[in-house]
Amino acid sequence: MSFYDKLQNASVKNNSLLCVGLDPDITKLPKSAGSITDFNQKIINATKGVVCAYKPNSAFFEAHGIKGIKELKATCDYIKKISPDVPIILDFKRSDIGNTSMGYAKFAFDFLGVDAVTVNPYMGRDSVMPFLERKDKGVIILCKTSNEGSAEFQNIVTDEGKLYELIAKNVQSTWNANNNCALVVGATYPDELSNIRSMIGDEMPILVPGIGAQGGNLIKTVKAGINSSKSGLIVNSSRGIIYAGEGQKYYEDARQAAEKLRIEINKARS
Amino acid sequence: MSFYDKLQNASVKNNSLLCVGLDPDITKLPKSAGSITDFNQKIINATKGVVCAYKPNSAFFEAHGIKGIKELKATCDYIKKISPDVPIILDFKRSDIGNTSMGYAKFAFDFLGVDAVTVNPYMGRDSVMPFLERKDKGVIILCKTSNEGSAEFQNIVTDEGKLYELIAKNVQSTWNANNNCALVVGATYPDELSNIRSMIGDEMPILVPGIGAQGGNLIKTVKAGINSSKSGLIVNSSRGIIYAGEGQKYYEDARQAAEKLRIEINKARS
Repeated sequence: MSFYDKLQNASVKNNSLLCVGLDPDITKLPKSAGSITDFNQKIINATKGVVCAYKPNSAFFEAHGIKGIKELKATCDYIKKISPDVPIILDFKRSDIGNTSMGYAKFAFDFLGVDAVTVNPYMGRDSVMPFLERKDKGVIILCKTSNEGSAEFQNIVTDEGKLYELIAKNVQSTWNANNNCALVVGATYPDELSNIRSMIGDEMPILVPGIGAQGGNLIKTVKAGINSSKSGLIVNSSRGIIYAGEGQKYYEDARQAAEKLRIEINKARS
Repeated sequence: MSFYDKLQNASVKNNSLLCVGLDPDITKLPKSAGSITDFNQKIINATKGVVCAYKPNSAFFEAHGIKGIKELKATCDYIKKISPDVPIILDFKRSDIGNTSMGYAKFAFDFLGVDAVTVNPYMGRDSVMPFLERKDKGVIILCKTSNEGSAEFQNIVTDEGKLYELIAKNVQSTWNANNNCALVVGATYPDELSNIRSMIGDEMPILVPGIGAQGGNLIKTVKAGINSSKSGLIVNSSRGIIYAGEGQKYYEDARQAAEKLRIEINKARS
């Protein structure tokens, strides 16, 4: 099944555009959390049926070396066991020259077995070909990122529009030959999000980080980013959900936060 | 000791601008090579005293999951044991929003203990701050990469010159406050290399991949990239050295290839 189909099916089944970001920062875990894997498993159990995707961010696992990679693998395996219909997006923002990017594609798709990855477009289309060629996998390309410093290069005016617009245009016109691309656009930039949606039309999903801790406005974001079917968004929340509670039953607070956000997103798109 | 100093000391001591790229592709290893770690150790032993740096590329290790990360760690540990004066550059081309990039910095500098990393500038300066803030570590920023597709965005004309020029300018004027930045410029683009050297002046090193298998011309590259002290380059060769031999004593062929390249580089800069 294609990434688009798996995402759409999970989104319809759970009536949700919400993606839970698994960013386990050990300085922020509740005291009762145990290991990163235990924590993630509780969060995954608690948010089952509420989400359209899970997005583990590789950096929070890599920070712990080999142990962290084992926990990333265990987390991906657990999602596939508990919620096999929900796609896993590995947020790792890689790219390199072709034969080298192949190694990253193997890590994500063969070792971890995820459904989609985030990639960085700076090196050009050939640098992400090993990802694009995996027709059954999603390739989510950084376009306009949520951080404050994203303007430094992404908003620079080029002969063909702003740089982030050129990237959206090239992804739409050339990179997406296998219908497996999506874009990353931060919730902190609703005007750019609206601009990008109008450029790319309805089909391509947009992954939107930056709700909550980073300050993105939910209603503006959803209205700016949805397609004409009132869908096409993957709205990510990490800290706002996984750290919603600090007590023994932190995962129940996480579920409530996820459920509340799912409903808010659905209100905003209706 | 700063990265600049460690690099300069190794370069002077070994009279070398050569960096050996450790890209262990198991489909290309000699039959007698054993594990990736065994292979790398033989290459490191053989090229001791001939190089100014080693550059393991994370992708070739990540391709093998947990096993690969263990081999990357063992390879870094071995370089530190056998050639403690030679800096290790982890080629992993990361970047993410600030609190997330911190995880990648921990992986590289604390878990692996490398001296420098490559990073991707697309997300802007704040995305690489956790690297830049490590004053004793080198941060090598992708500027004009060696792949054919690098023109797609890097050569695009902006209000402030081509995009790769703007990146070189911002790194020089703002990012390099701690004197720990360097740039990546592919040997496949000697005109751009010459242009960048004239923009950034003498101090900042330039890491140059793309010699050999990728087709970069060595003499042109060295002449285009050296600073007024006839130094300031880190000329990387991976496949041309580590796969120089196929027999039992492949590492002796690797040493000969490295020694030959070291001498050719020195001729070109004299």
